[in-house]
Amino acid sequence: MSTTSTTLSEVREKDLKYNLHSWSAQAGLKPEVITKAEGIYFWNEEGKRFYDMSSQLVNVNIGHGNKKVIKAIKDQADKIPFIGPAFALDVRAEAAKKIVEIAPDNMAKVFFTNAGAEANENAIKIARMVTGKYKILSAYRSYHGATYGAANLTGEPRRFASEPGIPGFVKFVGPYPYRGPIEFKNEEEATKYYLTLLREQIEYEGPETIAAIFQESVVGSNGILIPPKGWMQGVRDLCNEFGIMMVCDEVMAGWGRTGEWFAINNWNVEPDMITFAKGVTCGYTQLGGVIVSKKIADYFEKNTLWCGLTYSAHPMGCAAACATIDVYKEENLIERSKEMGAVLGEILEDIKAKHACVGDVRYIGLFSAIELVKDKETKEPLVPYGKDPEGVMKKILNMLRSEGFWNYSHENILIVAPPLIIKENELRDAMNIMDNVLDFVDNVIGK
Amino acid sequence: MSTTSTTLSEVREKDLKYNLHSWSAQAGLKPEVITKAEGIYFWNEEGKRFYDMSSQLVNVNIGHGNKKVIKAIKDQADKIPFIGPAFALDVRAEAAKKIVEIAPDNMAKVFFTNAGAEANENAIKIARMVTGKYKILSAYRSYHGATYGAANLTGEPRRFASEPGIPGFVKFVGPYPYRGPIEFKNEEEATKYYLTLLREQIEYEGPETIAAIFQESVVGSNGILIPPKGWMQGVRDLCNEFGIMMVCDEVMAGWGRTGEWFAINNWNVEPDMITFAKGVTCGYTQLGGVIVSKKIADYFEKNTLWCGLTYSAHPMGCAAACATIDVYKEENLIERSKEMGAVLGEILEDIKAKHACVGDVRYIGLFSAIELVKDKETKEPLVPYGKDPEGVMKKILNMLRSEGFWNYSHENILIVAPPLIIKENELRDAMNIMDNVLDFVDNVIGK
Ligand SMILES: Cc1ncc(COP(=O)(O)O)c(C=O)c1O
Ligand SMILES: Cc1ncc(COP(=O)(O)O)c(C=O)c1O
Repeated sequence: MSTTSTTLSEVREKDLKYNLHSWSAQAGLKPEVITKAEGIYFWNEEGKRFYDMSSQLVNVNIGHGNKKVIKAIKDQADKIPFIGPAFALDVRAEAAKKIVEIAPDNMAKVFFTNAGAEANENAIKIARMVTGKYKILSAYRSYHGATYGAANLTGEPRRFASEPGIPGFVKFVGPYPYRGPIEFKNEEEATKYYLTLLREQIEYEGPETIAAIFQESVVGSNGILIPPKGWMQGVRDLCNEFGIMMVCDEVMAGWGRTGEWFAINNWNVEPDMITFAKGVTCGYTQLGGVIVSKKIADYFEKNTLWCGLTYSAHPMGCAAACATIDVYKEENLIERSKEMGAVLGEILEDIKAKHACVGDVRYIGLFSAIELVKDKETKEPLVPYGKDPEGVMKKILNMLRSEGFWNYSHENILIVAPPLIIKENELRDAMNIMDNVLDFVDNVIGK
Repeated sequence: MSTTSTTLSEVREKDLKYNLHSWSAQAGLKPEVITKAEGIYFWNEEGKRFYDMSSQLVNVNIGHGNKKVIKAIKDQADKIPFIGPAFALDVRAEAAKKIVEIAPDNMAKVFFTNAGAEANENAIKIARMVTGKYKILSAYRSYHGATYGAANLTGEPRRFASEPGIPGFVKFVGPYPYRGPIEFKNEEEATKYYLTLLREQIEYEGPETIAAIFQESVVGSNGILIPPKGWMQGVRDLCNEFGIMMVCDEVMAGWGRTGEWFAINNWNVEPDMITFAKGVTCGYTQLGGVIVSKKIADYFEKNTLWCGLTYSAHPMGCAAACATIDVYKEENLIERSKEMGAVLGEILEDIKAKHACVGDVRYIGLFSAIELVKDKETKEPLVPYGKDPEGVMKKILNMLRSEGFWNYSHENILIVAPPLIIKENELRDAMNIMDNVLDFVDNVIGK
């Protein structure tokens, strides 16, 4: 397999000279220079084409270069690209309306932000304001963003740079049956186990101090952890019992990714708030926000909402959101996600059956993960937690990339989440590449 | 004077039904519905025209509807509206280069965010990472954003919803000679006084625990507080002495607002980091970021930058930034800000001389404030701190607005910060409206 370009192009050189790149030491970075993106593909400057098998950062759900969204953005740029958040604007009103209409029935209003971290920041503040309580529970193995509030929700190492932490942020162990401390007979048993743990933690933290429980409806970058049957209702019940707000972070799991508008719809549960970003505009312009229940909206009729940002409900973001939501509807992308998700699920089960290195596959809609192990029986991860001394995961990603399959990994887990517009033959072709690369991994572990 | 529309238009009704508005209780809100914005003006749906005398939220420095920036946005939308932050892209490289080139000489690289709060969030994390220390000093009477980290920097009530606060955030009293505890003979004396206070605080907090001092280079929404001569150099010296990072928040004061690219240029001081947003794109699309010194950039060659966000260095924001910077240069807006600032300064001095209700005027470039008092001698504020039981400030804003002058206020202070493209006759016409409304205020205080 050939490796991708290693010569420094001018753009790359300039990029590295002047830009700081996320989550990395800068020395030795060799970012691909991208010159084109269309549908489920993007191209580097040498003309090499990649399947975008993670939809960038699981956000370009409608694929690249969608003409309708681009037109909406251009039209808004000609009309009013910016006006302060205190004003009313056609597109601002319409975007909020469209979002509330597809949200669970109890939802009433939207507070718009730029992106996902800010959405969670504001949801934390709202939960604290409305309940008058201050503790915030969230799960280990979660990512909620990198600003202080969002990072303090986050249950993995990307939190550490935001510590010492904000008082009152408490972590619980969310459901991850594959690596549970015992073998569960079925989903119900797993749910019961994890809910018992959570209830105990709530009681010992003091329910009268807990404002909210935050969860990714399906845990995304930490490995596509799908809550077992009954879990979400169980959390809802605990929240009702103890007067705690249930907040679903749908930044990554929302917008058709799991075959429903919002992932929480898979379990027919109504949270108090939903935070969103990513798929709402598929990145074409920035937008995020918090959808709040009628009850919360009512609270802020008379009480001041102590939230604000210069670009709240940015006209360009709102215009892109309106068009993007139309695209989801017109192209039936929510249904397609479910249909193609079924195909992907079959492919993944085959892959698991075939490869010694695949310990678990998890999938819902077009949101999936392949968990790599050294041994199926012991489940020992392919790389130890938090480490990859020999760069095995990086090597796997590079092999995929050299074959034109672009995605990313987390610890010992490969994320697969293509744009919802992917066709069956494209999906099969791309997953063939994965299949071949996993042969190599089987060799590495010697099985 | 006529009042602006009070009937609920359809857009306004829809807006209020589905949107949560910032910093307000929602009941009784009547946002203007905006249908057009051009140059220094914007229009509501009844066709009423407003002078944009605060450049929206002091961010539309180049004015509304700039064709060059709009074209750049549209071109980028056609090309690549979004690609993940890990990739190199022409416009991403170019935007960072352009920003570093106009920044102080010691600056080397940019980490891009969506907006101002996130810029400060990342600067906090960077300061803590690089120094290995955790305390962060910032000033009372400051605003740095509304996410937890930025809000914990903030030295006014918009912070409270983000408390209990993050450990290690400490506030100091920054220079505000007009309301100092003693009458200062001159700027130097004020500087000496406030630096003595700051040094004492640093020593008693323990310099070995302090990572950074954050300041707005000119305090913006808390009243255009311009540091007295020698202050910035004094802070730089303290930071050098104690190994503390000096961070300038130029989100509002940057981008020509004060007659220099960055406000800190007025005092020829080199900070370790500059945070920016607003004027970098004038809101046309969202962008913010942190400019870091060569020393900091070097640190992250080998050390991981624990910062990241989905939309870091968003292509649309970078494209808008490149075009906006070109506009500043081609239209000589930095120089114009200085020239028109001189005119504005004269007008404000006349206003102060004429009106009993004007206790102080402060101005630098096109960044200015009128501080209203009940009595020039006692300096008693027109409204007590944190209160306005009779809605006097709101009444003043409404009178200005009904005459077509749009700006905003903070406590007893009126902010005046028009787009940098404003012409002298427009500035004089607009300030005439202010002059007339202040006659009314003189009457209110009975002088
Ligand atoms: C579940 C979840 N929440 C929040 C965020 C943060 O969003 P952003 O990067 O737009 O700030 C992410 C980003 O990946 C996410 O996956
Ligand atoms: C000085 C300063 N810093 C930071 C911010 C926060 O920026 P944003 O609203 O874009 O998050 C503002 C906003 O007004 C500001 O004036």
